[in-house]
Amino acid sequence: MSEKYEKLKTLLGEVADLNYATAILGWDQQTYMPAGGAEARGNQLATLGRITQIKFTSDEIGKLLDDLQKEFADADPDSDEARLIKVTKHDYDQATRVPPDFVAEFAMVTTRAHEAWVEARSKSEFSVFQPHLEKVVEMGKQFVSFFPPADHPYDVLLDQFEPGMKTADVKEIFGILRPKQVELIQAISSSKQVDDSFLRLDFEEQKQWDFGVDVVTKFGYDWKRGRQDKSTHPFTTSFSINDVRITTRFEPNSGASALFSTMHEAGHAMYDQGSKQDFERTPLAGGASLAVHESQSRMWENLVGRSLPFWKHFYPRFQELFPEQVGNVDLMTFYKGINKVQPSLIRVEADEATYNMHIMLRLEMEIGMIEGTIDIKQLPEIWNTKMEEYLGVIPPNAARGVLQDIHWSSGLMGYFSTYALGNLISAQLWEKINQDIPNLQDQIQSGKFETLLGWLREKIHVHGRKFEPQELVQKVTGSKIDPTAYLKYLNDKYSQIYGF
Amino acid sequence: MSEKYEKLKTLLGEVADLNYATAILGWDQQTYMPAGGAEARGNQLATLGRITQIKFTSDEIGKLLDDLQKEFADADPDSDEARLIKVTKHDYDQATRVPPDFVAEFAMVTTRAHEAWVEARSKSEFSVFQPHLEKVVEMGKQFVSFFPPADHPYDVLLDQFEPGMKTADVKEIFGILRPKQVELIQAISSSKQVDDSFLRLDFEEQKQWDFGVDVVTKFGYDWKRGRQDKSTHPFTTSFSINDVRITTRFEPNSGASALFSTMHEAGHAMYDQGSKQDFERTPLAGGASLAVHESQSRMWENLVGRSLPFWKHFYPRFQELFPEQVGNVDLMTFYKGINKVQPSLIRVEADEATYNMHIMLRLEMEIGMIEGTIDIKQLPEIWNTKMEEYLGVIPPNAARGVLQDIHWSSGLMGYFSTYALGNLISAQLWEKINQDIPNLQDQIQSGKFETLLGWLREKIHVHGRKFEPQELVQKVTGSKIDPTAYLKYLNDKYSQIYGF
Repeated sequence: MSEKYEKLKTLLGEVADLNYATAILGWDQQTYMPAGGAEARGNQLATLGRITQIKFTSDEIGKLLDDLQKEFADADPDSDEARLIKVTKHDYDQATRVPPDFVAEFAMVTTRAHEAWVEARSKSEFSVFQPHLEKVVEMGKQFVSFFPPADHPYDVLLDQFEPGMKTADVKEIFGILRPKQVELIQAISSSKQVDDSFLRLDFEEQKQWDFGVDVVTKFGYDWKRGRQDKSTHPFTTSFSINDVRITTRFEPNSGASALFSTMHEAGHAMYDQGSKQDFERTPLAGGASLAVHESQSRMWENLVGRSLPFWKHFYPRFQELFPEQVGNVDLMTFYKGINKVQPSLIRVEADEATYNMHIMLRLEMEIGMIEGTIDIKQLPEIWNTKMEEYLGVIPPNAARGVLQDIHWSSGLMGYFSTYALGNLISAQLWEKINQDIPNLQDQIQSGKFETLLGWLREKIHVHGRKFEPQELVQKVTGSKIDPTAYLKYLNDKYSQIYGF
Repeated sequence: MSEKYEKLKTLLGEVADLNYATAILGWDQQTYMPAGGAEARGNQLATLGRITQIKFTSDEIGKLLDDLQKEFADADPDSDEARLIKVTKHDYDQATRVPPDFVAEFAMVTTRAHEAWVEARSKSEFSVFQPHLEKVVEMGKQFVSFFPPADHPYDVLLDQFEPGMKTADVKEIFGILRPKQVELIQAISSSKQVDDSFLRLDFEEQKQWDFGVDVVTKFGYDWKRGRQDKSTHPFTTSFSINDVRITTRFEPNSGASALFSTMHEAGHAMYDQGSKQDFERTPLAGGASLAVHESQSRMWENLVGRSLPFWKHFYPRFQELFPEQVGNVDLMTFYKGINKVQPSLIRVEADEATYNMHIMLRLEMEIGMIEGTIDIKQLPEIWNTKMEEYLGVIPPNAARGVLQDIHWSSGLMGYFSTYALGNLISAQLWEKINQDIPNLQDQIQSGKFETLLGWLREKIHVHGRKFEPQELVQKVTGSKIDPTAYLKYLNDKYSQIYGF
């Protein structure tokens, strides 16, 4: 390999180390850090952010990239080398537009916003978080201003998480989805309702923890290269291809919600653990985009974890662990219960039929805040109004309403849509997987997931960030992101459960 | 304040952030990191180490320090500003002698050495650790070579932890201590032995944990600015004056050892939590030296935690928690039991009368390794021979012998003596404290520690690294480090317990 290429990899390795160090500080902040450490942590993250930005946006890297693009002009465009240069060049162009001082200030602002959010949420007082959110939005607008004018300012934010995706594209996909999902929700609500009262009971935390660990171990989550902790909001974070951690949370009377959260995060984590080892300490480690990432987490959580074959295997053990709660609940009743459709308050606990409605609401909020058409002070009220309009439910307080998600407190704007896009991709992949592995459902019913994980490793995980999301979906399924498969999946599943 | 001074503080703030980030990565490495993360963590620590070194040893900081020394030539030499410049200048001179590549390599080598040590210790196989230790020693010699020739090469290593202390000084102090401690140990062994069989029982981990938490909470350890976790070897680490963490460990059948470890680490932690808040993100935060640090941990562990007044207060609760183990053991029997003198294998579990013998052994090993007069392959054998000579006991395996301490695996050479010096200082301070607070023993007997902590805060903690260790001890007690007080303390205590 050329000397310049090796030099680039050395420099990118340092940048990766700094990014991973930042991730470790962030993980600690959300799992174990005492409150007193918050201010110092803000300084530390700001300093690391600034140094990382300076290192990555150096003229040296810029020059190397220019030279290497010429050097590799005739190389196989799908080779790791050509793709490393391409992906890095894209990241570099994105990063050089954002001044280091902005990055440092953003780290500081979001550290404080996160602390405020934790307090606001525990007190259920939006006013505690409001000034911090205003600052985050202000900085979001400032961020947009660093980029060339787009069709819509929100495009710039979306593009950070879903390269190439436009606000108009997402609105169009959602435009197809919305009426079909509303139709589906109506069909369901006109049908005989299913019982899930047994899920409202208290499930012992330790047993939920152990069961979840057992399940994701069978999935193939590698504990030698990961671990699970508790946090306010579950998340996955990587400190290497070989240290990918998940968190979960327990909430009283919410049945097996921690289990589904653990499956979800393990789905993300297995994706990151599956990057080609050669990609360690390079920008190619990780996932193609947030939507593709979400396709993995939602697949393990829903397409696998809420399926009948899955529970045919695991339910006897589950009943053994929780005899008081589900000892007298038969498999089909349980299966229907965990798939009950009911418009509800909390996004992460929403069922598959209503989930996307939560996303649509947030997308409108974010677009409104960035456009400046929403007064942030009014956010809880607007939130509640939209919740009633979309889902017919009104949050009793801010903690279960506008304050439920961590994203804005971390400065994540433009992120939410990727959840819905991830659902669509998961169903597209699922169709293809079931063609390629005809007896997959039998395997799942036997508690075997090696073939499934193997397929995902080979088709998706191993590529890391090498391919763009649309490119990858096209490559694997033969078409771009498309809502058809997901709508078919929802209709098949719920018509069976609700009998319409 | 001058513009240059503010500029220096800004640059030192960044360096502090990087050092704290490194500490967080180190804490995670020893508490929660999965094995798979080890190699990446080595890279991350190496990169952070290199960047920190480059930042701190920059010409810009060197020039600022030179200019500021002139600017502050007539300032009060004990002002925070003058001391900040002095301490930083000393650190700078130390650091500029060590090349960045060495620092990075050292981080990598010690990360691997640490992993190897964990494995070697669990298998009790020195050979697993040996090549790593050889490399660490080789790098120790290389480190020495960066400095001007000293009276003894080991002086350079000692000076890192105990500024101004010479190998010859320590040998002299140990020369006075050794015969007196041997005499004391002989007087004890000729006396009627005390019973501590009740400490060899199993004490439930969670109850030990809770009791330890209760005790150090009463001491004044601030949990809003700290936390406790488990690790193979207990330690204290700071990520800010306001985030100072401790770890502890539980070993089967070792009675309340975790409790004493918790008190010890809390002693360190309260010192770091007590730095003047103005010192945050400056080199003045922290402790004067490792010996002064150890004087704090040993004071809370031994002078407080193994005293009769302390247990007059806490014993009823302890008996309540552990009725099977100590329900029928009266206070005096318990008190004598926890102060039992018995030459033993493990340094961190050694009693006060024999502890320094463990240090002398390690000091001789380190000097031998650095001089090259000890063949590292022979270390387990030499260790065992010396253990027999000094303490009359022979380790049954390497895990309980040469592999017991984490220090060498972390590259810490020159460190051990500071433990013994800390004992001496703790007794010197204790004499002074008891003069200043005549009813201290009564307060301890009532479970009150505010006055004691207040005294330490005011006389020791608040100064951080402002004063050199000898200077600080002189300032507070009226004399330099001196073994007299410690020997008197040992004789008074053990003649009472053993009746000689």
